Amino acid sequence: MNRATLIQQIRHKRSFLCVGLDTDVNKIPEHLRSKEDPIFEFNKGIIDRTKDLVVAYKPNTAFYESRGPQGMESLRKTIEYIPDDILVIADAKRGDIGNTSRMYAQSFFDYYKADALTVAPYMGSDSVSPFLEYPYKWVIILGLTSNGGSMDFQQLSLADGGKLYEKVIEISSSYGTADNIMYVVGATQTDYISQIRKIVPDHFFLVPGVGAQGGNLQNVCQHGLNQDVGLIINSSRSIIYAGSGENYADAARSKCMELQAQMETILSENNLL
Amino acid sequence: MNRATLIQQIRHKRSFLCVGLDTDVNKIPEHLRSKEDPIFEFNKGIIDRTKDLVVAYKPNTAFYESRGPQGMESLRKTIEYIPDDILVIADAKRGDIGNTSRMYAQSFFDYYKADALTVAPYMGSDSVSPFLEYPYKWVIILGLTSNGGSMDFQQLSLADGGKLYEKVIEISSSYGTADNIMYVVGATQTDYISQIRKIVPDHFFLVPGVGAQGGNLQNVCQHGLNQDVGLIINSSRSIIYAGSGENYADAARSKCMELQAQMETILSENNLL
Repeated sequence: MNRATLIQQIRHKRSFLCVGLDTDVNKIPEHLRSKEDPIFEFNKGIIDRTKDLVVAYKPNTAFYESRGPQGMESLRKTIEYIPDDILVIADAKRGDIGNTSRMYAQSFFDYYKADALTVAPYMGSDSVSPFLEYPYKWVIILGLTSNGGSMDFQQLSLADGGKLYEKVIEISSSYGTADNIMYVVGATQTDYISQIRKIVPDHFFLVPGVGAQGGNLQNVCQHGLNQDVGLIINSSRSIIYAGSGENYADAARSKCMELQAQMETILSENNLL
Repeated sequence: MNRATLIQQIRHKRSFLCVGLDTDVNKIPEHLRSKEDPIFEFNKGIIDRTKDLVVAYKPNTAFYESRGPQGMESLRKTIEYIPDDILVIADAKRGDIGNTSRMYAQSFFDYYKADALTVAPYMGSDSVSPFLEYPYKWVIILGLTSNGGSMDFQQLSLADGGKLYEKVIEISSSYGTADNIMYVVGATQTDYISQIRKIVPDHFFLVPGVGAQGGNLQNVCQHGLNQDVGLIINSSRSIIYAGSGENYADAARSKCMELQAQMETILSENNLL
């Protein structure tokens, strides 16, 4: 999916919401567990009831990998089921030397047909560039993450000024453009979002951590919006596990409607519709 | 596998060689391609003919993932086929927030039954600690990698002195012990290996890059050996693709024998047998 289509979808749906499909077989409703592919059935229910409210789905690959080859088949079917006009982000945090990253690109872009892949930056340019050779696909580089451990290294001060996360964003933005690179910026990091927005004014940010992890939508938007919206806000557990019974998909829909309404207000207040 | 067993295996086999199973279906001999599971058949041949010469196998998960669920089944069968007294390193370079890393740990330790997993450090302690909860399993953290892009971030100078890779190794070594953490240290980085050995005198290093990537065994050993050997040297392409015909496994064996003989000499010269 290219940038223009993504922006168009955001304006059309008045939403920049992404639902994280962190589907754990131990947390899905009882009535689905006897199905042949409970993970896919669960996701199908969520997608059916939320697809008009969201611009992206983000399957977290760890949850599928933990079930072996069968889990990867659930991932494949889930991505196939998602409508074409919705961005599919494979949250896989891959990154390796060039010939290996090329294999990961084949895996997620050619085989599973995701539109975007999250990538860890520690190994540098040649670990990212193979993904950028695919037209209309996106690399989403870990910038500043939402977890406690982000303090360990991302916040280290560098000898020539600034923090490591700032340098990572600055240098890696030169690997591609705002048309094929986004950044992961945790919603719990609102103090830093405006700083990151200065380094990469045009790039989209994928912002996890709203909901279960405690991030605040208003704060994120105040510091992160740009002229093309520039934000995709992800919520996983607080949406997909909003209900635990047969009505789980309706509960997820209610939660999405709530967030979509807040987003519509924010877009309108900022003259972005 | 615990540390004592690993050291015992090294002394017994007079080898600290790891063979990287970066098995690419487009590079395996013609006669295997019509088999039901060509990747597994290829690996089986390599394992049968090299298992007495190596202490570890390192399947690079990207090569399996790129073939979808079927590829993951080849990975599962490959790991199952490897004898129990040989360390299995899943080279997956994972790392995410705590609840996701926990899923990756389930995947690689419980499901695929690898002994060790390579992990990317950018997200910090909570991205590594879930893996350390498994007794007798290993986390192998990216320290200083062998690729060109390692210059982008790993070599950045920090405000309080030292380079990022040194700080990563120093801080992350406190997450666990030399009994459950190793470091990836590229064989092309011989200038830095002695420096890293000073920071973590007791830890094992997994050293990729000998062979196709140009690293030199003698140099690596000169700077990296410790009293328990402390090195696992990986070679992938130069071993598994040493031959391209029906005798590919014999060619791989010859290449391994060559390296094992060099290693035996080095161990003997350093009174490590």
